[in-house]
Parts: sequence; C-alpha cells; structure tokens
Amino acid sequence: MDNLIKIFKVRGRFFSRYEKLIRETVIPYQEKALKDEIEGAEKSHCIQNFILAAEKLKTGECTSEFYGMVFQDSDAAKWLEGAAYILVLYPDEELERRCDEMIGIIGEAQHEDGYLNTYFTVKEPDKRWTNLEEAHELYCAGHMIEAAVAYADCTGKTELLSIMCGMADHIYEHFITNGAPGYPGHPEIELALMRLYRFTGKNKYLELAKHFIDVRGADSDFFIKESERYKWTVWGNNHHDREYTQCHKPVREQTEASGHAVRAVYLYTGMADLAAEIKDVSLEKACKTLWENITRKQMYITGGIGSSYEGEAFTRDYHLPNDTAYAETCASIGLVFFARKMLALEKNSEYADVMERALYNTVLAGMQLDGQRFFYVNPLESLPGISGRAKTHHHALTERPKWFACACCPPNAARLISSVAEYAWIADESARTVYSNLFIGGELDLTASFGCRIIVTTDFPFDGKVVYKIISDNGNTDMTLAVRLPSWSVSSDICLNGKKPDYTVVKGYAYINGGFSSGDEITVVHDMTVKCVYCNEKVSDNSSKVAFTRGPLVYCAEGADNGGDVLSLKVKDGGNIEVSGYNAGKLEGIAEISVEGFRLNGSESLYSYEKPSQTECRINLVPYYSWANRGENQMRVWLPV
Amino acid sequence: MDNLIKIFKVRGRFFSRYEKLIRETVIPYQEKALKDEIEGAEKSHCIQNFILAAEKLKTGECTSEFYGMVFQDSDAAKWLEGAAYILVLYPDEELERRCDEMIGIIGEAQHEDGYLNTYFTVKEPDKRWTNLEEAHELYCAGHMIEAAVAYADCTGKTELLSIMCGMADHIYEHFITNGAPGYPGHPEIELALMRLYRFTGKNKYLELAKHFIDVRGADSDFFIKESERYKWTVWGNNHHDREYTQCHKPVREQTEASGHAVRAVYLYTGMADLAAEIKDVSLEKACKTLWENITRKQMYITGGIGSSYEGEAFTRDYHLPNDTAYAETCASIGLVFFARKMLALEKNSEYADVMERALYNTVLAGMQLDGQRFFYVNPLESLPGISGRAKTHHHALTERPKWFACACCPPNAARLISSVAEYAWIADESARTVYSNLFIGGELDLTASFGCRIIVTTDFPFDGKVVYKIISDNGNTDMTLAVRLPSWSVSSDICLNGKKPDYTVVKGYAYINGGFSSGDEITVVHDMTVKCVYCNEKVSDNSSKVAFTRGPLVYCAEGADNGGDVLSLKVKDGGNIEVSGYNAGKLEGIAEISVEGFRLNGSESLYSYEKPSQTECRINLVPYYSWANRGENQMRVWLPV
Repeated sequence: MDNLIKIFKVRGRFFSRYEKLIRETVIPYQEKALKDEIEGAEKSHCIQNFILAAEKLKTGECTSEFYGMVFQDSDAAKWLEGAAYILVLYPDEELERRCDEMIGIIGEAQHEDGYLNTYFTVKEPDKRWTNLEEAHELYCAGHMIEAAVAYADCTGKTELLSIMCGMADHIYEHFITNGAPGYPGHPEIELALMRLYRFTGKNKYLELAKHFIDVRGADSDFFIKESERYKWTVWGNNHHDREYTQCHKPVREQTEASGHAVRAVYLYTGMADLAAEIKDVSLEKACKTLWENITRKQMYITGGIGSSYEGEAFTRDYHLPNDTAYAETCASIGLVFFARKMLALEKNSEYADVMERALYNTVLAGMQLDGQRFFYVNPLESLPGISGRAKTHHHALTERPKWFACACCPPNAARLISSVAEYAWIADESARTVYSNLFIGGELDLTASFGCRIIVTTDFPFDGKVVYKIISDNGNTDMTLAVRLPSWSVSSDICLNGKKPDYTVVKGYAYINGGFSSGDEITVVHDMTVKCVYCNEKVSDNSSKVAFTRGPLVYCAEGADNGGDVLSLKVKDGGNIEVSGYNAGKLEGIAEISVEGFRLNGSESLYSYEKPSQTECRINLVPYYSWANRGENQMRVWLPV
Repeated sequence: MDNLIKIFKVRGRFFSRYEKLIRETVIPYQEKALKDEIEGAEKSHCIQNFILAAEKLKTGECTSEFYGMVFQDSDAAKWLEGAAYILVLYPDEELERRCDEMIGIIGEAQHEDGYLNTYFTVKEPDKRWTNLEEAHELYCAGHMIEAAVAYADCTGKTELLSIMCGMADHIYEHFITNGAPGYPGHPEIELALMRLYRFTGKNKYLELAKHFIDVRGADSDFFIKESERYKWTVWGNNHHDREYTQCHKPVREQTEASGHAVRAVYLYTGMADLAAEIKDVSLEKACKTLWENITRKQMYITGGIGSSYEGEAFTRDYHLPNDTAYAETCASIGLVFFARKMLALEKNSEYADVMERALYNTVLAGMQLDGQRFFYVNPLESLPGISGRAKTHHHALTERPKWFACACCPPNAARLISSVAEYAWIADESARTVYSNLFIGGELDLTASFGCRIIVTTDFPFDGKVVYKIISDNGNTDMTLAVRLPSWSVSSDICLNGKKPDYTVVKGYAYINGGFSSGDEITVVHDMTVKCVYCNEKVSDNSSKVAFTRGPLVYCAEGADNGGDVLSLKVKDGGNIEVSGYNAGKLEGIAEISVEGFRLNGSESLYSYEKPSQTECRINLVPYYSWANRGENQMRVWLPV
C-alpha cells in the first residue's frame, strides 16, 4: 500500500455506498460466517481451526477435526485485511477489539519455529512442505502476510506482523537457507512478500519473492517429482497440469496467459511488482506480453477472465463463451492487482482502463447490491432453465448464493473495495506528480507530501464531470496533476478555473502542470455518450452481436426490464439510443439505457422455414454490475443486431 | 428385420457408394482392428479377449489379461451384424468363412450354463450380474443377440443364434426364474430380445424384454443398493445419476428425454417395439411424449441428439450449443432405430422425416468420405485453435481420428448403412400396402408377397425426382404404394404414367391405390428448393442466425470453400441463393449452394467502437455430412444474418 487509503476519504455516492455496505454488512456478515454463527449458511470452521491448532500445540491433541478447504486459513486473512481498511476509514473500537482477539487466536496457533497453518498443524502434522502443488501452504501464508501488513499499516499494531515475519523467516529458512526445492502451486506469496519487504524494508523478503519467481517452471516437472516422492494428495484428482499451475515454462518465457486464472494474475502481479522494484527488464517484458495476451485476446468486455469452468482457467485465444463463462470474481480482482502493478511500471492509461473495466463490472457484479450474497462466477448471458442446471452450466448460477464452502470471492471483494483509494491514485513525490486513475469523489490529503489537499467532486460513473479542487494552506503548491483520459471517452474537456490550461498528453494521461494556487479548480468532463461495441469476429459467440457501454459501465438486458424475455430481442442497426437521467430509486441508483430494437415472434417449432415476424420495441438495459438483483431472469450482455 | 435387406438391392449411386465403402473398406478395416492387425491404431484386443476366455474355460487360466473397455465384446457383435448384411448384399465366401471362424471363437468362450462375456470370464469370474449399472453385461449380450439374429437371417447359419439363445435362456433363468432384481445400466437387451423373439417366435424372449422395461425405474434406487451390496466399480466415478441411466422414474412416467443419449434412444426403441407388439397403450403414450420432447426441444437440425459431452447426454430443453455439441454418431443411429419403431406404431411421415434427417446428416457425417476415419462427436461449428484443444472442447475434434479405444460408432454406422433397406421400406402385407420412407434407388423384389417388383430410379438426395416402376409377371398387382411426403418439400408432384392419379394423403403419406399394371410408372417429384431455416428463439446459440437445407441435407460453410475464414461471414437477409448442378468431382459428388452475403472486416482489437466494414461476397456451402474431409478448417452450420 502506498498509504493512500489513509489519506483519501471517499465521499462520492457510488463508492460511499459500497464502503458503507462493506462496513455495515459484508464485514460483520463474514465475521459471523468465519465464526459459524450464521444459520443456514455453509459451515466455515475457519476460526475454529485456529483454536484447534492452538489446542494441539498446547496439549498434543485436538477435541475435533480440521474442517473446510485446505486453504481455509486464508478466509480469516482476507477478512482481517478488509477489516483493517475499514478501521482506517471508520475507526471502530469494538471491531478493532474483535480483530485483535482474532489475531490473538491466530498467534496461539503458531509453532515455536514460526510455522503457521492450521490444516497441517491439526490434520497433517508430518507433512509440512511436502505438497506445494496442492496444499496452499504458501498461499495461506501470503494472504496472512498481506493482512499483517495492512493491519500494521492501518492500526499501527504489529502483533500479526510479528507473527507473519516469523512465518516468512521460517519460509526463508526452509527454501533459501536449507535450499528446499520448489515453488507454490498457487502463487500469492510473491506479491505478499513484496508488500512485506516494502513495509519492513527487510531485503530477505524481496530475495524470497524473487526466488519463488525465478525458480518457477525452471524445473517444470517439480510437482510430478514432489508427488512421486511424498505420495499424498489433497484433492485426489491431481493430473499435474503444468499450465494450470503456470509452471510449464520459466515465467520469463511465458507468452500466453494460461491455467487457473486467479493463480495466473496473482503470479503476474508479483512479477510486475518485482520487475519494477529491481528493474528487471526481461521480467517486465514477460509481464507486458502476458498483459497483452490477456487484454487483447482473452478478456471479456466486463473485465472477466478465465472463461473455462474446467480448471477455472484461461482457455484459448478468442474463446469467450457468454453463457458458460467462468469469469471468477477473484480473477478480476487479481486482474485489478496486476493492472495496478503494470501502471506502477509504466504510467499508461491502458492499464487503468482495464483496472476500471474489471472493477466496475465483474468485481462489483460479484456482490449483490445489498452486500449479502455473492457470485463466484460471472457469465455474460444467463438462461434460466439451463444456467445452473445443465451439467455444462452447473457453475453459472442465475442468482447469488449466500456463502460458499470455498469462500474466496466475498472477502476478496471486500478488501479490494475498501482499499479502492490505492487504485484510484498514484502520488509520485519524486516526480511531483499525482495521478488520478479512477474517478471517485472524495478528499485526498496530500499535506505531508505536496502541501495540499485535492477535493474531488463527481457523480461518476453516472456523470462524466470530475472537479478537482486544490486547497493549499501555503497558498500554492508545486504539483502536476495527471488525469487519465479513459479510452471510452472520445474527448475529455479540461478546464482550469474555467479556461483551457496548457497540458501535455502522454500515454493516455493529461499532465496539467502546476504551480496550482489554493482554490484552483480543474474540471474534466469525460464523454459519456453510450457506445455500441463490436467484438472481434474471431469470438464466435458474439457474431453479429453488439454490446452497449456508457463510461466504464457495460450494460445488459435483463428479463425484468424486458417483459421477461430477452432471447427474442434484436437491436436495430443504427437505431436510436436513449439514456435516462440518474434514477435513484432503481437498483440503488442507475442511469438506464434504452435502444431501438425488435422483438421476434417466431414459430413455436424448433425449426421453421418461416421468417419470424418482428415488432418494434425498446430494449431496456441496466448496468451489468446490477444484474440478478431481482430474482432469476434472462440476461444478455451481447445482443444480436 | 422384416427381411427387406434380402429383397432390396440398392442401385442409386448415393447409397451404392456407401455400401461399397462398407464392403470394401469399413468391414475389412474394422475386422483388422478387432484382430489388432492395424499398425498405429489403438489396440482393440476384442477377438483376443474371446480367445483368452476360451482358454480360461479349458484350462482354468489365461496366458494374458483382459484388455479394453468392459463392453469390448460388443465391437465384435456389431461387426458381425454389419458383415451379415454385407454377405446378403454381396455374397463373399471368404468373408463368410472368416465370420464363421469368429463365431467359432465366440462359441468357445461360452460357459456350459450359456453365459458369455469375456470381461467377466477372464477378469472378474466371481462377479457376474453384480454390477448391472456399469458393467454392460446385458448390453453386450444384446448386441451379440442382434448379430446372431442378423447372421442367421442373412446366411441361414444358426450357430451364433444357438449360442445367443443359450445366453438369453441363461439371462431368463437369472432374472425371471430365479427372480434376481435389476435392469441394465445401458439399455440394448430390450430391443435385441424383441428381435430374437420375432425371429424365433419364442414368447420367453418377449416376456424377458417386457420384464426389463417394466422394472426399470420402478425401484429407482436399485443401482445404489446394488453398489452398496457388492461394493465394486468399473469406472471408479460412479455417482448413481438416476437420469443418466433413465431409471429416475418407471419408463411409462418419463416425459423428458434425459441422461446418456445412446442409452435413452436404445431404451425408447425397445419400448416402442414392445408397445407395438403387445399393444400397450401407456407405453406407446410414453414413447410419443419422449419422441416429441426430443424432436421438438432437444434435437439439432442435423438430427444430432445429446448436446452435452458431460455424460454424453441430453441436457435441458432448447440447450443446443453448436461448438460444444456432443451429438454422438451412435445417438443419432439410435434415433433412427427409435424413429423406425415409432413408424411401425403409427404410419406418420414425421417419424420418417427425423429418421432421414439423422441418417443423411449426423450418421453419415460420422464417417469420412473414404470410410477410413470416424467422428464420435458431431459439432455444428468447428473452431480450429479452440475445438479439440480448449478443455471444454476436448471432445469436439476438427478431424476424424482413425479408431477409438471406445469404438462404438464405426461398426454401428456400418451396420446401419448396410441395412438401410430396412428403414427405406415397410411392406405391410395384411394392408396390401408398401411404404416408401426413404428415397433410395434400387430394386425391391416383392414377388413372394405382392407378386411384383418395384424398380426405383432416382438421384436423391441431389435430385427430387423418384420414379417407381412396377413390374409384375402376372401383369398386374393389387397393392397400394404409400409414398412419404417429406416435410422439407412444399409440394410433391405425383404422376402415374404421366397423369395425376387419385390418391389420398394421410399423416404425411400419399396413398396411391392400385391395382397397378406391370410397367406402371409412378413419378414423384419432391421440391428441392433450398430452404432458409430459422431456429426457435429459445435456442440462445442460434439468435439471429439461419441455416440452409436442400431436401434432407443440412448444409454448412467450411473454410475450404470460403477463403479459410467462416467466422467473418454474414448472410444477406433475403439475398439470392444459387444451387450448382451435381458436381461429381467434389467431395465424392455434391450439389453446392452459394448464398449472397457479406464478409466483415472488423478491427484487429478485441472490442471496438467502430462498426466493421463489410464487402459483398458469396458464401459457399457444402452438405454437412461431407465436412472435415479436407483437413482442419472452420465450419459453421448456423450463420449470422
């Protein structure tokens, strides 16, 4: 974290609502889930596992069994990280007390040598570090390290940080000092160690992160050898798919995003972070190649990635099915992470465009508007009767479930949304430049670094006007404001106190050079015209279809707004498009779009020689993130023309 | 068999070519495969298993292990059945000698109590009848019974018939006399027993067929109980999916085709045959309901069924994806069987329409034009780079492979094509009516029953004219010729010696009443205009797309005829359609279609705000059955408009 979360107060109503939801609903709900206090929800047992592990350490025995996924510990970590952000945004003694209590419980589960993982402590005490491929030991450590850094940063309390430095030191000893071979089956530790290194300043964590990145895929048979040596399995269905775990080649030689999508983007995030830190050109090049492959050939218009439910994985270039899309919420969260690190490598609006696309569409769609239910899978077409029911569509639910046995997405969304400031801004003190990547109303307090505050007023994403007001106690400030010019805006008008200022545009950012005086207002008006989007013909599912976007928001047609039936709708080529004003009463506030179209009235037969008759109609569209909030109904992002 | 195969000589060039292929290529090739004489092909071991079983019976031991699928025996059965039909069409002493030799080998593998199954004899001698769900014992018996009836019928030799009556008697004793519970996991025995009953006249086989149909699903937990009792598994992944094995309800209560598609249609074929034989009204009603569900909600335009590769199964109504279609060749063969039995229940052209659709499209597409390679899976869209490669498309190959470890489809196609006479005609002596269901050139010798021959001259399916010439040695014959009026023909012109005769149309058949005199010519000209077909909007994959058919043939666009790229093609609404004359030099003879259309020249980007430019072009189409004969290339049946 660049500490932006501590100096940016979100005030714009769009993200304020989400922050409020995270604080009032998501964090308390998830805490209850972790503690098994929700009736009717799937049991988590997460905290109970830590209690059992502590018991085992004290007495050598447990009163009950480990329960849950092998990576169950990470749910507590993600929750703690989200709670840390909320605590800095909204100090809450009672919540902080409960966090401290949870950290206490976690600490008791730590071995004397620093090792911490309840699955192994409780269930497989003799099998530490013998199944890196499947057992998520380093993954859980990574998440808890992230939580530790966030909690220390946000609250100043270092108990969890000490615990996790102990674990990180233990990992260092095992893999570096003792030279144990291997790398994690599920990357995450790399990006976490980079955060730990940056927060603590200890080089050994950088060294360890680099080690895991360097050795990955150097021996692409490592997991096969591991499994032959130790002969045990977590899931029982281990096929040692090298692409699935991104170890088919050394990472610097990988050119196509492949395998499990979350693993992939977590890995790439760590790679990009390391590349920037140590100025590793070959690593940076690999990151750019992988980035281009994802965003130019394997990404849904919603910023969803990993189109195949088989392996929750990337598949092949241009294979982007709508109804069977996997597009896991966590994968888009990971894409946001990756984009942010690419942006740190190179200030190029392309990265922020994708970050915004994934955030405002797939990530937000992952959460119900009331913060109480979550999608793991985010299809671009929903077909009640088939979706969630056909064997090939079991994953593609039509409504968000309450909680998952594998509960990775809800706390992951919570921690991202509550730390959105870190993605909205970059404050580059050495270049005296502040970058506005995402347009979120609020107040950025740069007193300590730039001697000013920036007050942002906007109704984005529903309105394209963003006003940045500079307030400086000194009267003026030496600072460049670099405003992103998003790719969805044909032209963005920029004014300084009502007049066009001098500015230069470099790689999609408008650099408005100041010397600003206190009270200066930079007004940027982005073009919010609705866009009709065409897809590359190589994507077979979207032949002769179009999608509609407005600003960063992808829209979709839902049955609820279209007489229950979306499949018989067809867009009129070149037809008229209308945008309603902001409607606060609908779906927590949206601007609706309606486009001219036709409703087909075809034969009841399965196949017919008769051309369907058609009647003119309006097709009503709502933002994709707001779909499936009104019961099961048909939904389509891509509509035939 | 109604013995039509013995009295109909195919002469029309379309099916003559296929018969020749079966005789000269498929049957010899498959015989070599069964005997493991093909280099580079997957080992079959089928005949070797029989030899091992015989060895075991003689000596109590085997020199090697059983190899292959649990249902490996059925490959020999299907091959023998196909060979029997070829022997009656083209007597061949050498082939007959080899068949007799194979039958000798099979006989040696039979136990004294009549039991015959090499998997159990060689590998699991103590587990007979303890895994009806998975082990295909009754399925293998069924296929061998079919082979036995066909071989006896076609050659007059009854050795295999005696062997299989022994096995059928053994099954009767186990399930009827001794009252063992259960029914087959894979239906097939039911329709086989109906054939055995009809050929031998023995009521016990009818009783046994009826028994298996009656008890199916009456205890829908039978397979669960069986597995709990005997605790062994063939595949290891047994989930006791009741729908998969069509035992979720008693068969008379089933209303939607579900589960493994081949199992389903084999079951329904047996049900329809039994319903006709014993005039069981409730069973007939169930057959009609299931028929309607399949053909009105779950069938591809190609007559493919079972759209999901998961479980090779039916999925949900209107779920008919093109690129991930399973549409197994054997399932369409089973649909042809089912249609034929429905036609026996009710003379209604609807059944023959579907029979023809499945035969001329999916079944024929299952075989390469040279008879040397076979498709198991028949998608309606092929996307090189994705098809056969993405995890969700591993089944959807872009080119036919040589042979399969699970080699059900090739010999199944061979036996169907070589007995096509049985589907082309129904000779109903009691009603003095001969039904012409499929239009195949040749000579039907009805001397024994109707005192005449019918010589059929046609170039169908490329030309719609079919001439039936009646030759009677007596000078005239008392016979009604009922010619099917196919649904694809808007109007069919009928002439008797150049004049319009009196005829009545009932349920899609034109009953032309004779008294015919020898030399009478009935000429029927079916409308072969190319049809543009629209799909029900509920099928999401076909939104705003059309397909083209001519006669029974569904056409498709292949890269080979369209500059390598089919995905950027769009049909012009109301555009002109041209049919070339029969081109003998292309794809073993076809009539090509070309339609007016556009080629889109969109942006290289994945998503673009710019509408793709388009240039006018012709879209060239070839019959679906002939696709994938020119190397890997894109293919589409449904084209955007």
